[in-house]
Formats: sequence, structure tokens, C-alpha cells
Amino acid sequence: MKIVVLKFGGTSVGTIKKIKRVAEIIVGYKKKNYKVIVVSSAMSGATNELIKKSFEISDNFSDSEHDVLVSSGEQVSCSLIAGRLIHRGYKSRSWLSWQVPLLTVGAHKNSRINLINKNKIIKYLKEGGIPIVTGFQGINSQNRVTTIGRGGSDATAIMLAKFFKAERCIIYTDVEGVFTTDPNKLKKAKKIKVISYEEMLEMASLGAKVMQPVSIQDARLNRIDIEVKSSFIKKSGTLITKKSNIINNKIITGITSTQNDSKVSLIGVKDKPGVAASIFKPLSKNLINVDMVVQNISANGKETDLTFTIKTDALNKTKKIIQENKTINYRKLLFEKGVSKISIIGVGMITTPGVTFRMFQTLANKKINIQVISTSEIKISVLIDKKNTKKALIALHKEFKLDN
Amino acid sequence: MKIVVLKFGGTSVGTIKKIKRVAEIIVGYKKKNYKVIVVSSAMSGATNELIKKSFEISDNFSDSEHDVLVSSGEQVSCSLIAGRLIHRGYKSRSWLSWQVPLLTVGAHKNSRINLINKNKIIKYLKEGGIPIVTGFQGINSQNRVTTIGRGGSDATAIMLAKFFKAERCIIYTDVEGVFTTDPNKLKKAKKIKVISYEEMLEMASLGAKVMQPVSIQDARLNRIDIEVKSSFIKKSGTLITKKSNIINNKIITGITSTQNDSKVSLIGVKDKPGVAASIFKPLSKNLINVDMVVQNISANGKETDLTFTIKTDALNKTKKIIQENKTINYRKLLFEKGVSKISIIGVGMITTPGVTFRMFQTLANKKINIQVISTSEIKISVLIDKKNTKKALIALHKEFKLDN
Repeated sequence: MKIVVLKFGGTSVGTIKKIKRVAEIIVGYKKKNYKVIVVSSAMSGATNELIKKSFEISDNFSDSEHDVLVSSGEQVSCSLIAGRLIHRGYKSRSWLSWQVPLLTVGAHKNSRINLINKNKIIKYLKEGGIPIVTGFQGINSQNRVTTIGRGGSDATAIMLAKFFKAERCIIYTDVEGVFTTDPNKLKKAKKIKVISYEEMLEMASLGAKVMQPVSIQDARLNRIDIEVKSSFIKKSGTLITKKSNIINNKIITGITSTQNDSKVSLIGVKDKPGVAASIFKPLSKNLINVDMVVQNISANGKETDLTFTIKTDALNKTKKIIQENKTINYRKLLFEKGVSKISIIGVGMITTPGVTFRMFQTLANKKINIQVISTSEIKISVLIDKKNTKKALIALHKEFKLDN
Repeated sequence: MKIVVLKFGGTSVGTIKKIKRVAEIIVGYKKKNYKVIVVSSAMSGATNELIKKSFEISDNFSDSEHDVLVSSGEQVSCSLIAGRLIHRGYKSRSWLSWQVPLLTVGAHKNSRINLINKNKIIKYLKEGGIPIVTGFQGINSQNRVTTIGRGGSDATAIMLAKFFKAERCIIYTDVEGVFTTDPNKLKKAKKIKVISYEEMLEMASLGAKVMQPVSIQDARLNRIDIEVKSSFIKKSGTLITKKSNIINNKIITGITSTQNDSKVSLIGVKDKPGVAASIFKPLSKNLINVDMVVQNISANGKETDLTFTIKTDALNKTKKIIQENKTINYRKLLFEKGVSKISIIGVGMITTPGVTFRMFQTLANKKINIQVISTSEIKISVLIDKKNTKKALIALHKEFKLDN
């Protein structure tokens, strides 16, 4: 069977008009003789409205009842999609996660799909039916409803694609695909045709708007090709696949930039084992997300400087925590609001020498000072003054030939 | 086990504040050492909003998907009630109809509960849990979600009371109980403490606001005592039970009146077999609901007069159908808008002679002309001019000692 899994996100099914359009997209695949399995999220806004109700009931609302509550949203969208396909003369029906069933393991609100019983769906596909499966949910071994956390409906689609050996898994969303950089920040941003899982993971700050990193990782582990495309515009999207599938002469695939970052530097920290841990432990305890961490080697063997970035809205809390932390000694504590992290990402850099140099030279030519540098195998990140973000994006986008 | 079934209607769980109040009512029974089984409807308005969506998807929305769609409403209310009870420190959880399961037979949108698997709920009750069961729905032999039509949540409560041999089945709603007549029409209307199933069925025009006739019939067939009471006001309600349980020295239990009725008379109809059928068949086909039908005996053996009532909004359609019906012969066709049907209801009239006379005399004393009469074993209905409705209600309410 030539199976395709189509997943529609909340904005794609956000109104009755959009649901009708979604039905036409499904019909299109059916006409091309695909066996189509559809996964849908709840209509946009529905889940948040339900969560709001739960907060009004209790500031500590039961996790298991939370899952029962919010999973009703997909029940609504799936029945409406199926109803529309039936109206259009097709054999279709909603499949609630307990009807398939989709079995999950793990805690409520954060389960993951472990096993999908294929028999009923296979039978239904053979009969020519179009199953509309509720995303984001499943049932556990106690027959209770579970949900699978952030990016849940994507995870459902990926697991269905895996279990049913789908030819394609297409994530329909409200963006056209993944771009070389944020199109809102740079008009010259171009849609990326093919990107590797690894690059996509590194581009999380862009990717999160498209897919949650955890779902990309799911796809990577299960080697599921994913196409991300718009449900509103009829254009090809971005294919996320394994590196070996990519024939790409570009060294850099994309450029990301962050906003609202702040830099914290501890100058003259006593250089002894455990010092980094004693700084970061209380931050982690207070759920402060530390991003870049750079520690220079100790010039005199006694003292070192340590710099890290956090989101600016966590700056005051961070200040307080460090100043009250009596276990660490430092000479000076510096804070700087308004820094921006610029990253260039590409599997091509592994085999291409001089990428780092080209990045630094490009920024130097524009008189942009690099404050901190951090690299991974396929990514180079630098911290710069926030006011230079746009200038840096334009220059790097041009330098690495992403403009055309 | 001392089991009580508590059912909460849509208005009783219509807001978060009301759901919190419902939780306190449940806690009250728990504290009295009852094993409590709760049934809830969807939050008021939720079901209608979902149905509206289905109409926008298709003017002929699939029945099976309709059931999936609207059943999501009870999932929401039940999880919120359970969440509130957990917040209050009680062991509680939602039980979706497929989890119990509640098995139904019959068509989608109009199924009825056939079997309830008691094991899991009994186990849960023994563990001290408070199960919150989704009303109005079940699953059929194909494992598909079904709904049980009008008054569905009441039916769920009654069937649960039957299967679990509950001591009491309490229907919490937005009215205080059943009244001797509509309190909006007559201020002297009094709440009825005890009423028989049969009287309640005859009082359908009042009762429909409290419970659907089909649910009363369910309770009657299964001999389930039902108490109808308000979830907003702490007062005893009305007990609906079998006749033999009622010690009541009142002859008449209640008085009902209809509005917006019209009277249709066919004068001088040829009196031969099949004539009534040929009149009513096309009306029935056109979904016109005929209420009272009275045919006088033929004075000359050749001709008869036939009168019936319909709702006034169906009058024009009825006129057209009769006038275009060439199979019936009559001398004259009369229509009259603005008639009202007044009924007195009471099991007491079976054993008390002269009730009919007292009713007619009371109306005669007030110079109210009786146009048509129709009686059943426990009910007498008369048709009068609409303008006399209030006068008749006051006089009859007093005559049959319902004022005190």
C-alpha cells in the first residue's frame, strides 16, 4: 500500500472554512491513489481555552483529568474533518486514540506513543476509508486517556508513519516551510528545499515555529522523511531528511538569530573543580534556562572568567540568585542586556575548512564586534550587540550565498 | 452498598463557579456515607455550539460523526468536576462511556443504553472513588461513540440507578421541582412533593422543562424513584415515583395550559371508514403535529364534524394541505387561532366521581365557554378561548385546592 500520513496543525483547522480546505487537500491525495491517514490537532485556541478552565477549577489541576479535558479538542476537529469528507462523498471516519488504539507509556501530560495497533486501520484503509486520527493523545495500560506533551500531534503523525511504513509524512502548518533565516527579519530569506534532521535540530529557534525539536528527533531516530508545508498556499515545502539524502552544494543551510538575550559574566572566578556546577545548580533549580556558556582558560592558573546567556526576562532573578550565592567567589559581576546570538548552521561546514574564519571576517568587515563564540560540529554561534543583528544577518546571508 | 446517582444538567455545570458548587453537593452526599455515582451533561451551550459547527460543515452532517462531535462536551464537564473533587481532596475521576463501558443499541443520535458493565465502577466505588460518568452517550457493538437523543443524560442516570440498584436517583436541574401549574403563569403555583410517573407523563407540557417524557417512561418501566431538585437552591424537590407510594388526598395534582394552539374543524364530513386517515395522513407526512382530535357521532348517520388542534405556526401549511386534498369531502372548513388547552391531571380522579362535572362547573361559573373536550384515565382536557387562560387557571387551581 502506498500510504501517506497528513498532519494538520491547529491553525490549519482553526475555522470551519479552513477545515473545508483541509478536506480538499486530503481529497487531492486520495485522487492520486494514496491510502491517506490523517492526523489533526485541535482547532487553534481550543486547547488553551480548556486549559484556562482547568486553572479556574484548581491551581493544581489533576494531570490525568487534564488529559481527559484537553484531548476533547482533537475529538471535535477530527469529527468535523471526517464529516466534511463524508459530505464530499468519501468514506471517512474519526478514529479516537482509544479506538485505534494508540498506546502510550510515561506520565500524564507527557506520555509518548509506544505501540500502535495497526489491524483496524489497515482493514479500514483496504476498504477505501480515510481514517482521521486524533493527534496529541493516546491511552495507557490502565485505559486512561493520555496526552503526549508539546508537539504532540507531530509525534502522532511520525509514529503513524513509522508503524504504517508510510511513503511520506507531511506536516501541514501555517508556514510555507523552513527558511534560510526568519523572513520577518530578513526579506531575502529563502525557503529551504531540503534540510537534514541535524541541521533542523540546530535551527530549533526557527524550527520551533515549524516543529518541536522533540518531534524532529523522533523523525530522525525513526528515519521518517518529513515534508513541512503550508495548508493555505499551494507550494512545495521543506523536506526534512537524513544527511545522505541531501545533495547540496551550499555550505550553510540557514542562519538564526535570537532576541531578548542577556549576557552575564563572572570575572575572576576561583578556578577550581565544581565551580561551574555551584553557579548553575541554583539557576537550574529556579528553572532559568541558560543558553551559551563560555569559560576561558585560566591565564594565571588561579582565576577564570565565565560568561553565559539567559533570556532577558530572567535577568533580575538571575542577578539575585548569583548575588545571594555565598559559595562562589568572583571579583566582578557584569550584566549586559540587549545581546543577540547569531548562528550559522550547515552540515557542509564539516567538510569545508575556513567557515569560521569567513563568518568572523564578514562580521569584522561590517565592524561588528564578536563578544562570545561557541561552536558545535554543524553550527557556529556568536554573541553580538543586539543593534547589529539585522546588519549581521544581511551580511552573512549574502556571504554564504543564501540570497539566491 | 448505599448508592446514590446524582445527575447534573447543562445549566447546573454551565460555568466554573457552578461546577464548584456541584462539587460541594457531591461532597455532601459523600459525607453522608453514600457511594456516589455522578452523571453530567455538557456545560450549557456547549452542545449547541458544536451542532452549529456541524451544520456549517454540512447541511447533512454524518450521524456517526455528530455523535463523536457532541459527546466531547460531556468529556469536558466530567473532567472538570472530577478535577474539582480531586482539588478538594477526594478520590475521583472521569469515566468516559467507553471506559465503563455503557453499551447502546439503536441508531446514531438516538441510541438507548442496553447494558452497563458494572465491574470497574463497583471496584472503584469500593476503593472510595467518586466516578463522574459522561451522560448522554455510550458505545455500540462496533465500538463507535453513540448518543442517546433528547433527555439523554437523564436516561444515563436512570439506567445507572437501575443497574447499580441505587437507593436514590437525583436529577439536579435549574428548576426547584415540578409545580401544580406553570409558576410563570400563576403565582399561586405550588411545588409538588410527590407525583406518580403517570401524572408526570400527562404533565409533559410542564414536565418537558424538568425531564423529557421518554426519561420519565424509562424510570417508570424500571421503577426508579427520581427526585428532581435545584442545584442552586437548597430545598427539597419533587419525588417522581409509582402510584402505590403516594398517599395524597388531593384529587388533582397539577394543571397545565398550552399556548399558541389553533383549532381546525371540518364540518359535514362524509361519515365513512377511512376518512380520518385520509385527513391525517398528509399532515403526518408533512410533520405537522396534531394534538387533540375530537369527532362527534354522526347525527344523521351520513355526516360528521371533525375537530383537531395544531400549533398556530403550522396553521397556514395545514390549511393548504387540507384544501388541496381532493380525497376528502366536507361542507365547511373552519379555522380558529388563539385557543388554549387546559388540562387537569391527577390519579385521584380515577376513584373520585364528579371531577369532570366540577371542572365544567368551575369554568361555567366564570362564563368560560368549553369548545372541545377530551379525556384520559387521569386527565381531562378542554379547549377554551386563549384570552380566558389565566382566569381558568386561577379558578381551577383554587377549586381543586392546589392553592394551599
